[in-house]
Amino acid sequence: AEIKKIAVIAGDGIGPEVVAEAEKILKRAEELYGYSFETEHALFGGIAIDEKGTPLPEDTLKVCKSADAVLLGAVGGPKWDNNPKELRPETGLLGIRKELGLFSNLRPAVIFDCLKDASTLKPEVLEGTDLMVVRELTGGIYFGEKFRREGEGGQEAVDTCVYNVKEVERIVRQAFEIAQKRRKKLASVDKANVLETSRLWREVVNRIAPEYPDVELEHVLVDNCAMQLLRRPASFDVIVTENMFGDILSDEAAMLTGSIGMLASASLGEGSFGLYEPVHGSAPDIAGQGLANPIATILSVALMFRLTFGYDKAADAIEKAVAEVLDAGHRTTDIATDKSKAISTTEMGDLIAAAM
Amino acid sequence: AEIKKIAVIAGDGIGPEVVAEAEKILKRAEELYGYSFETEHALFGGIAIDEKGTPLPEDTLKVCKSADAVLLGAVGGPKWDNNPKELRPETGLLGIRKELGLFSNLRPAVIFDCLKDASTLKPEVLEGTDLMVVRELTGGIYFGEKFRREGEGGQEAVDTCVYNVKEVERIVRQAFEIAQKRRKKLASVDKANVLETSRLWREVVNRIAPEYPDVELEHVLVDNCAMQLLRRPASFDVIVTENMFGDILSDEAAMLTGSIGMLASASLGEGSFGLYEPVHGSAPDIAGQGLANPIATILSVALMFRLTFGYDKAADAIEKAVAEVLDAGHRTTDIATDKSKAISTTEMGDLIAAAM
Ligand SMILES: CC(C)[C@H](C(=O)O)[C@@H](O)C(=O)O
Ligand SMILES: CC(C)[C@H](C(=O)O)[C@@H](O)C(=O)O
Repeated sequence: AEIKKIAVIAGDGIGPEVVAEAEKILKRAEELYGYSFETEHALFGGIAIDEKGTPLPEDTLKVCKSADAVLLGAVGGPKWDNNPKELRPETGLLGIRKELGLFSNLRPAVIFDCLKDASTLKPEVLEGTDLMVVRELTGGIYFGEKFRREGEGGQEAVDTCVYNVKEVERIVRQAFEIAQKRRKKLASVDKANVLETSRLWREVVNRIAPEYPDVELEHVLVDNCAMQLLRRPASFDVIVTENMFGDILSDEAAMLTGSIGMLASASLGEGSFGLYEPVHGSAPDIAGQGLANPIATILSVALMFRLTFGYDKAADAIEKAVAEVLDAGHRTTDIATDKSKAISTTEMGDLIAAAM
Repeated sequence: AEIKKIAVIAGDGIGPEVVAEAEKILKRAEELYGYSFETEHALFGGIAIDEKGTPLPEDTLKVCKSADAVLLGAVGGPKWDNNPKELRPETGLLGIRKELGLFSNLRPAVIFDCLKDASTLKPEVLEGTDLMVVRELTGGIYFGEKFRREGEGGQEAVDTCVYNVKEVERIVRQAFEIAQKRRKKLASVDKANVLETSRLWREVVNRIAPEYPDVELEHVLVDNCAMQLLRRPASFDVIVTENMFGDILSDEAAMLTGSIGMLASASLGEGSFGLYEPVHGSAPDIAGQGLANPIATILSVALMFRLTFGYDKAADAIEKAVAEVLDAGHRTTDIATDKSKAISTTEMGDLIAAAM
């Protein structure tokens, strides 16, 4: 089979541990389906700051650019939290998104049956929740000009939020297309009653909507969306929104599933290239102890198979294997009710690989 | 007693109905405690657009400025949603905040015992939740320069987020002082890993913190806060944040209490002047039918008594009366389990006035 190149970025904290389990899954897929993966590891985030003096070394970017997909563990930790901007893991994250043109971040938020009780929401409210946040990832206030200046009220700081028609169009089209393949409902989230960028956003959405007549569209103000996610999570299908709103709402949506250790995400650009990573962070407090849950990273491989490689059969097999292992009662510490019976990161990876 | 002047802005939708009940409470407080209130009604929001051609008429501003406090019902509705910016109720809201110097918005989110089950969160998670969001209200991206321009990707829209040291200092000091009178915990919410305004915000908070050694301070990133509100709502005491984050998080916090028809808010400036209003909106779908819940507006009067007039005894009496009436099982439709037994807006107002 054609060799697929995967850049592997383990990162910080529990990153290396969960990525190691995901690599087992890649190996297992090679055995089972005759695929060939060529993985190349690269430094990124805190560890790259420590070893190379920058969160996103040129080498790493080169490895990513010559790959078909990137698998990322997690980056960051208190060690680098007080660094100047250029020496922070987050700066690397923003940089890699921009450099690789990853304008779209897909974050599915689903309920795992066996984890229903892990949510702080009532099970009857969660019932049937299966939504996807499509977050614009390379525009808006994260990437606009930022500076300090002297003003009448002392020093002042400025951030600029900019969106152009093209940026809005491409993410909104993608969201409509995703909705077409799901339950055909799209909620576009903005603050059009106050922000100019939101008014542009809404204009573009309304202009494009007639091209997707089978998709039911609603506009939701961001503050209202933060409420409705709590009140009627199951009523959402696809939510599309700008960078900062997407950051906040996708985390809220992830948390309400109660399954944050289980959620995968994909960051996409034009074409089939994508970066795949778990939604959870680097959890430095439990790093190196075999306590991390590798499932979100393993499910990120399934997303990669489906969205970048078109390996749907293998993607299905991974997801089915995860469900089976959970149904058989196996749990890592984070999701175990009886912590004394919890299995380790590697045990979980082995079980899922075996179940494929 | 000294005459207190109150500007009364009924507004749109259910605004007039709920404000009428709050005025009953003012009358009752005059009878019981010998206070004197002089109320003056003014047009604002949608109705002002219809009758005066602007959401915030000069007259209304004058009435507010010559008053000691403002009582506001609710504004807005679909009728005005597609108007140009200058003819939208929201523009009036932003204008009145700026013109009256209301830089601080206090939104208590508490659980009413009898409404515990109304929340979509599990009762054991909500247990003990009693938090206050202190939202900066006249700065940030809501008020920064906004415009369109032509760029390489077609037309682009720009919003500017600006904060100066003075603006951050005054709201943060107020939040520390509020925390001192409560459980002495303050969560300052920002996105300091990405935004320059957030970095300025955090610097100011850290510089001021040593002046309030009795208050335990934590910095929480806004995306993380959206999650933690769901995971551990009871662990928050006071949350202070900038305008846009406060908009989103205060609505999330309000919704998780399950008591959104019951929550009051205060917008304050320098000195004792304040604008008081329910957290809920104008609910045009149920307007004029006697279905609205007046409790949030009545509790806004209690807040006004406490924060602007120092009428603590009467404020306590109002809050006690509300609790008594609820404990006796009286419910408006929105909070009734058995809708057929629900009482009307005016009946609820009468019962609370009588119970004072
Ligand atoms: C670390 C930070 C820059 C990042 C973001 O806000 O984009 C993170 O919160 C995320 O959501 O991936
Ligand atoms: C109507 C809108 C401008 C307003 C805001 O966002 O400030 C509202 O959502 C609020 O929270 O009071």
